[in-house]
Amino acid sequence: MRIPLDRHSGTPLYRQIEGYLRRSIVSGSLAPGTRLSATRRLAQDLGVSRMTVENAYAELEADGLVAARVGSGTYVLSPYPVPRATRTADVAWPLWQEDLSAMGTERSHPTPEELLRVAGHPHPIDLSSGVGDPRLFPADEFRKVLQNLLRRDPIGALAYGDRRGYEPLRSTIAHVLASQGIQTSAEDILITAGSQQALALTAQVLLNRGDVILVESPTYGSGLDLFRALGLTIVGVPTDEHGMQVEQLEPLLQKHHPKLVYTIPNFHNPTGSCMSGHRRRQLVGLADRYNVPVLEDDFVGDLRYEGHAQPALKALDPGGRVIYTSTFSKMLMPGLRVGFVVAEGPFHERLVEHKRVSDLATSNLIQRALQAYVTVGRYQAHLRRTRRVYRRRRDAMLQAIDRFLPSGTHVTSPQGGLFIWLHLPEGISSAELLPLACDRGVAFAPGPAFFPAPDAGQSFARLSFVAQPPEDIGIGIARLGWAIEKLA
Amino acid sequence: MRIPLDRHSGTPLYRQIEGYLRRSIVSGSLAPGTRLSATRRLAQDLGVSRMTVENAYAELEADGLVAARVGSGTYVLSPYPVPRATRTADVAWPLWQEDLSAMGTERSHPTPEELLRVAGHPHPIDLSSGVGDPRLFPADEFRKVLQNLLRRDPIGALAYGDRRGYEPLRSTIAHVLASQGIQTSAEDILITAGSQQALALTAQVLLNRGDVILVESPTYGSGLDLFRALGLTIVGVPTDEHGMQVEQLEPLLQKHHPKLVYTIPNFHNPTGSCMSGHRRRQLVGLADRYNVPVLEDDFVGDLRYEGHAQPALKALDPGGRVIYTSTFSKMLMPGLRVGFVVAEGPFHERLVEHKRVSDLATSNLIQRALQAYVTVGRYQAHLRRTRRVYRRRRDAMLQAIDRFLPSGTHVTSPQGGLFIWLHLPEGISSAELLPLACDRGVAFAPGPAFFPAPDAGQSFARLSFVAQPPEDIGIGIARLGWAIEKLA
Repeated sequence: MRIPLDRHSGTPLYRQIEGYLRRSIVSGSLAPGTRLSATRRLAQDLGVSRMTVENAYAELEADGLVAARVGSGTYVLSPYPVPRATRTADVAWPLWQEDLSAMGTERSHPTPEELLRVAGHPHPIDLSSGVGDPRLFPADEFRKVLQNLLRRDPIGALAYGDRRGYEPLRSTIAHVLASQGIQTSAEDILITAGSQQALALTAQVLLNRGDVILVESPTYGSGLDLFRALGLTIVGVPTDEHGMQVEQLEPLLQKHHPKLVYTIPNFHNPTGSCMSGHRRRQLVGLADRYNVPVLEDDFVGDLRYEGHAQPALKALDPGGRVIYTSTFSKMLMPGLRVGFVVAEGPFHERLVEHKRVSDLATSNLIQRALQAYVTVGRYQAHLRRTRRVYRRRRDAMLQAIDRFLPSGTHVTSPQGGLFIWLHLPEGISSAELLPLACDRGVAFAPGPAFFPAPDAGQSFARLSFVAQPPEDIGIGIARLGWAIEKLA
Repeated sequence: MRIPLDRHSGTPLYRQIEGYLRRSIVSGSLAPGTRLSATRRLAQDLGVSRMTVENAYAELEADGLVAARVGSGTYVLSPYPVPRATRTADVAWPLWQEDLSAMGTERSHPTPEELLRVAGHPHPIDLSSGVGDPRLFPADEFRKVLQNLLRRDPIGALAYGDRRGYEPLRSTIAHVLASQGIQTSAEDILITAGSQQALALTAQVLLNRGDVILVESPTYGSGLDLFRALGLTIVGVPTDEHGMQVEQLEPLLQKHHPKLVYTIPNFHNPTGSCMSGHRRRQLVGLADRYNVPVLEDDFVGDLRYEGHAQPALKALDPGGRVIYTSTFSKMLMPGLRVGFVVAEGPFHERLVEHKRVSDLATSNLIQRALQAYVTVGRYQAHLRRTRRVYRRRRDAMLQAIDRFLPSGTHVTSPQGGLFIWLHLPEGISSAELLPLACDRGVAFAPGPAFFPAPDAGQSFARLSFVAQPPEDIGIGIARLGWAIEKLA
């Protein structure tokens, strides 16, 4: 047995031997029952006196880690007096665990993506995705930016950063927003781990368990999951092709006294609709009148393919009423997990503190790389290229729907974003349709995931037109058409 | 005025002109009051008919974006009917903001680091840090790993990953933990944004506002900040040089019915102490008897410089009782923000779901790079090198304390970790000492930040012995000695 000894160390040799063996026993690399080398033999191997080895063994024996059997040798015991039980059927969960289980997060359904994988089609086409096409991501350019960064300032890049986020990135975001009509400053921006964290922090600061949040019905599914996990009471506001029906908002504000209104005004997830300018002004006015904050989720506001931009709610905010969030994740690289919140006043301060206690800060390395990438104008070029590609895909999907889906299927053409919202023919439920479609090799996001009411949305399906190239979109929609007709 | 026109586009030319001008007006690059080119002139510039330009202007006018004045020309109006008020003194915060302000997160104190910066000493020495020395970070090796990764599999690296975290990284963590006596599997590991997020998610899943959490007194400051932000009732358990005084735990469990016990058994923050093996077994036994989960924060368990390792509480857990968290941030690179939680049962499921709704997932790119880095054995080499360096720095600090600090100052030598906990001579308060020390060019972390009770800890100071090279440690402690004597 070779044991590394340091003869110049202040630690006596017997301690070094003992420490090495102890670690081996505790780590399990010397299994219980193993016979240690005889003291004479080990002393010879290591070039130390026999007494040194005997002292080491004696220490281990005193701690109950080995046992000497007369005439037989020294054997390794189980390292802990309390035997480490591996979790088996006979070790019961503690009661607090049973209670959590009883509180019942109902076992989460398999995702459409998982269903598609399980179905095992040789050429599966996933139209259920909520993000952009990773094949368009400018990975090579981003790699070079990272490379330069880690060469130039490795310590800065790998240390903790400013708690609100890397200042130059916040300044750049303020400039980009200014070009979209939102006047803000780096001071009012907080960098988050994607816009999901922006939603979570905002809801945690503003609402307690049981408080009411108003959301569009339908709305972003992981937003609903978050609000449910926080124990909020979710009330839906009806929508149409111009977004939230703000006309119906006032009685809901009077009845429910919500603590927050959550809205996705541009290229809505899942419907793809844009809120009209008139409704935007109405909404900001009502929020002010009824003293309720508005959380504006502008997750793909930059991805417009046609039509006129409407002002952001934040641009209509006289100050401190609208909380604006957006992200780089959807458009650029989901794996980066960088989003941001624009907000002012005491709320902004609370948000910054809540971010700090939640995870200290978002990866400084990624923030710096993103800043370098966005600044050099490559981001704008990437956006232009992306818009061109996505617009063609949207058109390909609309054509395919027209061609392959049976009459009775309704869609509206979105002016931007990622999604087409399908109203299925009467009598077709998305829950029944999904497994059939997956078997045929195409997945979509079924309607119910997007509705606050538990039984709503069965007649809807969300399709991503950005995740696949046009050829595959055509094949995917043809398969979907087949599945719908089979079910009809 | 040059306007880019695409004559092969399906969009009519007048629409293209109108769209361009609209964007310029909305973005503010065409300021209100600007006179547009005369229609004849612009038509000539662009090589289109005058009618085309007139149609474009008419559309803008219909939307209230420009106004034609007879005989004078066409002028840009303010883009929004509701003028965008910039936040000024005369725009009041909405009431909900005032309420947040009244709820009073007391304005956060400047950090010792900030105080030191403001003091403006030409050669400041910061001993207040809570993380490792960034100059030891293996930035160059890490850069190469990232580089390879983004060359080999850019799409995988930049897409969303598994919601529990990158599977190979979880497997590697399971192997590393096994070598420390913790039997677990990748299935029971959740990757988080540092161990701070592990604390936040655990507390959010297990406790509601007003519930009691037991913590060591003193304990990790940002942990206390978190628990306070969540509205928890924090009860301190006394500590001594062998960690939490578990003998005093039982009456507290009986009296307060806590929902969680939070402990840092190894190289405690801030005291540097290690919990004895006897107390570890007692604690796990009490947690089982009183049906309360234990959160074990092993933030620098790997950084042992001498003495015997004690088993992790998690290694004594018969299953589902102890929640174990650790991190790569402190030892490796704070800017990476990667930690993990080991837990089983219904709690683990809830934790995974709460992570998903909180920020979807931790940066996939960073996880993959870390996995590649740790796997190739460079991490182990980095740890060995780091231990050697930090041990020398600890010894340098102990010697300097012995030499430069007045009698009446008490310290215990930590066997590992990052911190030395200083008991100041009687009558010296850390709040009074800090500004004096900063003026002299040295910062430390004052005691009160680590105590659950609001007025406790004035006679303590936490010193990081890892953040500075030995020479600077000596100078820093000498300055601190000067400040203490000045105050005495």
